[in-house]
Amino acid sequence: MTASEVQRGSSTLDAAHPNTAQTTAYLPGRRLRPSAKVLPEHARNHNRALVLQTLYGAGAMSRADVSRETGLTRVTVSDLVAELIADGLVVERGQREGVRPGKPAMLIDIDREAHQIIGLDLSDYSDFHGAVMNLDGEILERIDVALEGATGEPAVAKVLALTERLLQASTRPVLGIGIASPGVVDLAGIVHSAPNLGWHDLELQRRVADASGCPVIVSNDANAAVLAEHGFGHAESDLMLVRIGHGVGAGLLLGGIAIYGSRFAAGEIGHVTVGTDGGPLCACGKTACLEAWVAIPRLEAEIQAIRADATDDDTAALRIDQLLRDAGERLGIALAPVVGALDLSQIVLSGPEELLDGALAQATVETLRNRTMAEFHGDLTLRLTTLGQDIVLRGAAVMVLSGQLGVS
Amino acid sequence: MTASEVQRGSSTLDAAHPNTAQTTAYLPGRRLRPSAKVLPEHARNHNRALVLQTLYGAGAMSRADVSRETGLTRVTVSDLVAELIADGLVVERGQREGVRPGKPAMLIDIDREAHQIIGLDLSDYSDFHGAVMNLDGEILERIDVALEGATGEPAVAKVLALTERLLQASTRPVLGIGIASPGVVDLAGIVHSAPNLGWHDLELQRRVADASGCPVIVSNDANAAVLAEHGFGHAESDLMLVRIGHGVGAGLLLGGIAIYGSRFAAGEIGHVTVGTDGGPLCACGKTACLEAWVAIPRLEAEIQAIRADATDDDTAALRIDQLLRDAGERLGIALAPVVGALDLSQIVLSGPEELLDGALAQATVETLRNRTMAEFHGDLTLRLTTLGQDIVLRGAAVMVLSGQLGVS
Ligand SMILES: [Zn+2]
Ligand SMILES: [Zn+2]
Repeated sequence: MTASEVQRGSSTLDAAHPNTAQTTAYLPGRRLRPSAKVLPEHARNHNRALVLQTLYGAGAMSRADVSRETGLTRVTVSDLVAELIADGLVVERGQREGVRPGKPAMLIDIDREAHQIIGLDLSDYSDFHGAVMNLDGEILERIDVALEGATGEPAVAKVLALTERLLQASTRPVLGIGIASPGVVDLAGIVHSAPNLGWHDLELQRRVADASGCPVIVSNDANAAVLAEHGFGHAESDLMLVRIGHGVGAGLLLGGIAIYGSRFAAGEIGHVTVGTDGGPLCACGKTACLEAWVAIPRLEAEIQAIRADATDDDTAALRIDQLLRDAGERLGIALAPVVGALDLSQIVLSGPEELLDGALAQATVETLRNRTMAEFHGDLTLRLTTLGQDIVLRGAAVMVLSGQLGVS
Repeated sequence: MTASEVQRGSSTLDAAHPNTAQTTAYLPGRRLRPSAKVLPEHARNHNRALVLQTLYGAGAMSRADVSRETGLTRVTVSDLVAELIADGLVVERGQREGVRPGKPAMLIDIDREAHQIIGLDLSDYSDFHGAVMNLDGEILERIDVALEGATGEPAVAKVLALTERLLQASTRPVLGIGIASPGVVDLAGIVHSAPNLGWHDLELQRRVADASGCPVIVSNDANAAVLAEHGFGHAESDLMLVRIGHGVGAGLLLGGIAIYGSRFAAGEIGHVTVGTDGGPLCACGKTACLEAWVAIPRLEAEIQAIRADATDDDTAALRIDQLLRDAGERLGIALAPVVGALDLSQIVLSGPEELLDGALAQATVETLRNRTMAEFHGDLTLRLTTLGQDIVLRGAAVMVLSGQLGVS
């Protein structure tokens, strides 16, 4: 499928083609912020999103059901559904099997097979991951490309080439492209700073949109992950998702609203100092940063050293357990003030299960409970994501669903 | 003025009279959360608030100016303004002095003298503070009552008596009563827990509304304070306000939205453990809680001991400076992860200036900068509120303005 086919795929796509005005309205947190104006078209878009959201969550139902669920009048629902059918987003599914007398109702549903979504995860230090997904965020096709140390423009070229291959691999009109980048990303899709990729003030959204002709949404990888956990992982609407890999970053959702911060750097907790008793030297030059305690390469190196050094397996296992326990405790020390200040009830970890699940997670939750008020946080839960390594790709799908359909 | 006069004062008051449905829509954060439905009346209320907000912020202007500022049609603006004039909330102020040819425009403005607001601050351990305010949040009349150790129902009786005296002291119809309570308060105005007052699951909103016949809004005192700082203190829309008194609590505003937390306990940071090197015993039984480090009674007792103990004034001054520096450092250690996670650019302190301003505030901001990433937080600002001890009362006014007029 070529970019021009993508454009022809649906009149919605033309309407939603990215430009400066559009990109400011993309992200789920954004559209819930105080808006300067409420115009009739704003209400119409809101109602359209409401109908899509209702169908997306509940599946096939009649127009009357939609009216009841949304509080919109039947006339409004009929108008919106006609528009959505014309746009190829909603489809009639036949009549409900009659349980009540009278004319049986025609069922309508999102046409989940009519469009596809492309997602890119640029947060892995060795590979860029890409996927073609359906509207339920299920991965239909994967393409990975090795980064081979590329930074700056060569890394951008790899993103553009991967995007083109994913468009070729798609078999339906593409609703949009979601890109999860490491670093600080603003709402216009500019990557202000992603040191590992050598990107500074890179207009990634515009570059990929220009090359592909598709609507493009760019967000930070931890923000994408928290959207995935909320959208697909049955998480509550007050949630912190902590990604632990080469670095440490968090995505925050409060009352269902994504938090971006005053400089789009919310969740950048990797270089917060932990404790007041010193700690390992960090790559940033300071000591006792959270990353210096819990980043995966550091844990892997320590485990390797323990294994090389220990006289028997039992001793090694004990020392590894203690290492992971200490790391978990440090994570808990760093997060306790955040849990208290935000009154969080749930934390989700994302990263290598073999290191995070078990002693580390257990020590984190124990530390969090010990260092906050039992009255509020005694029942705090901490768990690993159930979405595994695909969490960021699936978050990219949520970004597109949210930006293009208003569905989250 | 009696409660029945209050009721007759404005048809708006009847419409906004508190009941279960109303109270869920009161607070500023609330109305910006994802709403299940967008109905025409919702849009109408939103537009009405938009007109009021525009006039409230900018002062007298013509209907055409309002139309231009809001993006609403002239017809919509004229309808809304007619309704607001009938409700006694907006008034015509005469014609603008002609600079352009043609018919001079009639200026309209909020009728700032037509209504008053009552505010109560229950957060001081020795006194309940009350005030009658105008629509600009200026205090016209104060009434304080000594708490005399009252807790439970006797403390409720003092609230009801103070409210009655404030209603008597008011000279205009009362738009609403804002109450700032210590402890954990939900959006329905139930005080779930305020240990110092011996309140548990107290329906304070309903009790005062039943007794007064007025719309009543109840919120936590730190949440009220952060609204005051945003509304009257020229604060940015990403802001943490930290109140330091007998306890320590914070109010959080993110993207202009107040944060309440999963159990309405957001900002309850007083019993978060600080550091990993021990600390003073806290009233809660743990050690090294933030309150154990920085609560005012502890600082005052230490200062008294230093003064009694020191051989000369210079030695005493040095030791007091160090005490305040240590307290400030501990506050910075506790807040650094919150600043990092939320990407805050501004923190405001509220409490006794003679203790907080100077060494303590200086040590806090230095510690925050040292323990977060310079790239993002090198220009973090920390200052004392300019609203002084009235910050909570004025926050109560913002709660009423926001709940009754949609103005913030
Ligand atoms: Zn570091
Ligand atoms: Zn304590």
